[in-house]
Amino acid sequence: MSDLPKHVHVQEEGPREGFQIEPGPIATADKIRLIEALAETGLKHIQVCSFVSPKIVPGWADAEATVEGFKARPGVHYTALWFNEAGLNRALAFRDKLTIGGSISLTASEGFTKKNLNRTHADNLAAMRKQTAAHLANGVAVTRIGVMAAFGCNYQGDISPAQVVKTIEDGFAIAEEAGVTITDLSLADTMGWAIPPRIERTIAEVRSRWPDKRITLHLHDTRGLAVANAHAAIKLGVDRFDATVGGLGGCPFAGQKGAAGNICSEELVLLCEEMGIETGVDLDKLIEVGRMAEAIVGHQLPSELIHAGSLDAFRRQAA
Amino acid sequence: MSDLPKHVHVQEEGPREGFQIEPGPIATADKIRLIEALAETGLKHIQVCSFVSPKIVPGWADAEATVEGFKARPGVHYTALWFNEAGLNRALAFRDKLTIGGSISLTASEGFTKKNLNRTHADNLAAMRKQTAAHLANGVAVTRIGVMAAFGCNYQGDISPAQVVKTIEDGFAIAEEAGVTITDLSLADTMGWAIPPRIERTIAEVRSRWPDKRITLHLHDTRGLAVANAHAAIKLGVDRFDATVGGLGGCPFAGQKGAAGNICSEELVLLCEEMGIETGVDLDKLIEVGRMAEAIVGHQLPSELIHAGSLDAFRRQAA
Repeated sequence: MSDLPKHVHVQEEGPREGFQIEPGPIATADKIRLIEALAETGLKHIQVCSFVSPKIVPGWADAEATVEGFKARPGVHYTALWFNEAGLNRALAFRDKLTIGGSISLTASEGFTKKNLNRTHADNLAAMRKQTAAHLANGVAVTRIGVMAAFGCNYQGDISPAQVVKTIEDGFAIAEEAGVTITDLSLADTMGWAIPPRIERTIAEVRSRWPDKRITLHLHDTRGLAVANAHAAIKLGVDRFDATVGGLGGCPFAGQKGAAGNICSEELVLLCEEMGIETGVDLDKLIEVGRMAEAIVGHQLPSELIHAGSLDAFRRQAA
Repeated sequence: MSDLPKHVHVQEEGPREGFQIEPGPIATADKIRLIEALAETGLKHIQVCSFVSPKIVPGWADAEATVEGFKARPGVHYTALWFNEAGLNRALAFRDKLTIGGSISLTASEGFTKKNLNRTHADNLAAMRKQTAAHLANGVAVTRIGVMAAFGCNYQGDISPAQVVKTIEDGFAIAEEAGVTITDLSLADTMGWAIPPRIERTIAEVRSRWPDKRITLHLHDTRGLAVANAHAAIKLGVDRFDATVGGLGGCPFAGQKGAAGNICSEELVLLCEEMGIETGVDLDKLIEVGRMAEAIVGHQLPSELIHAGSLDAFRRQAA
């Protein structure tokens, strides 16, 4: 148990992941309300929106209005997502309010790259070279390599740790060419293929190759295994996870339209806190925000914990 | 990894757990349809009903009609639940069709015993002595000690491994007095308090005391941690789990009316099969039965996997 981290960083992505996939329009005021409530829970990283084409993602047509609207809490990093230079420029308009960092975003499955981005892996590498240059030209540091579909892919099947390592190598080649220093590697189980032993093997391979890089896991609960996967990673010392309050989000890929979203932030916090690992998050407050998220989207969210309540609430009653 | 079992036994309790808690009346024909479909998946243990007072559990007023109605598949053990001699007698009417075994059912939390059964722990021990005698008088073997609330309790808070050991000792005292041989210990996380380290500690304590007894875990997914808990137990060699298709069931205790049910059978099967552990269950068929269960109850069930589909289905498409 000596590998257990002392602190786990929960990087909240509920607003961005959740509101891009909800079918109904969500009022900008509700998005702002959720972002502000999340910041009151002790979360230090909140991804607030996507700067994407409103034609492709109508749910984020109000990205600017949302970022303008929320009151920032000191000490909280608010981030956003973008996929091209147009999106980057929209984000840069808010560089005083948002924490803007660049990422080299790759996919371990060429099948996914083709279906999702309509690019070959080589095309995608070229696009990432161009995007890295754009980041640097705008004074945005590029410190992260992200790998989507790192544990399996609906279009290509299983993904081996060797394919993940190869993909990260491609990212390092782009970084080296551009003269940037990568500190962080992010592995995403985009379509919910991970199981604990696969998490363990992939992390072991990536770590043995790049022992000094920090690893973030982006887990989806598509098949109900996200918490088990997080637990396996925590036992190996992984201390950074993307997560969404209430389990907001989904999986729009290949016949999974009804599928669950990301790992629930509050279930991850419960797991950590019960294991004696700090998160800095007030779980009872976070559960309340999960209930708020459920009320905002107007349908049941996958989080079980927001329906059951925390253990501490029952401990207080029992005492 | 040498403790991993080769085979995990999934003991399906969906019909019994699910239909006792659903608010709407479920047609007997639908119950029968689900039981018969479950038997086609390769599951070898299916708990089909509760013989309880229809005043207390109206959902099982048709227990007899259900057991009479389904066509038994050879090689499948159909079981039932009862809490007193009246229930036992109703079950015994079907001893040719049902596998009838006796259990000494205790609770590690006196707070729960009082609230749920309106008995002290001492009263409950007396009731179990009486019930064991009734089992034996009817030629029913008593081979199992069950412990509810083995990981925590909404009324009493945390439950220590020592309390679980003490409760099992009480069960062994009853067994010895009655001259029966216990082969199985069943630990239930009745209200969803377990986390992986608590599972590991409790199993370690119970095993060090009774190394030759088989352990079954009955897990609830009340706070989203059931699969992580099962994984922790499997890594310790635990190879018997109660589970419910679709995650049928719930938790009627103490302000958890909206809470999730048991660990989903199909998510447990997915975990095992992907870890290379046999279950004898056809996962794609089981997912179809989960969808059938969802259609029968008429609302979304907690299982994520029935909404996403199996990995093998995507592997076949990708190949």
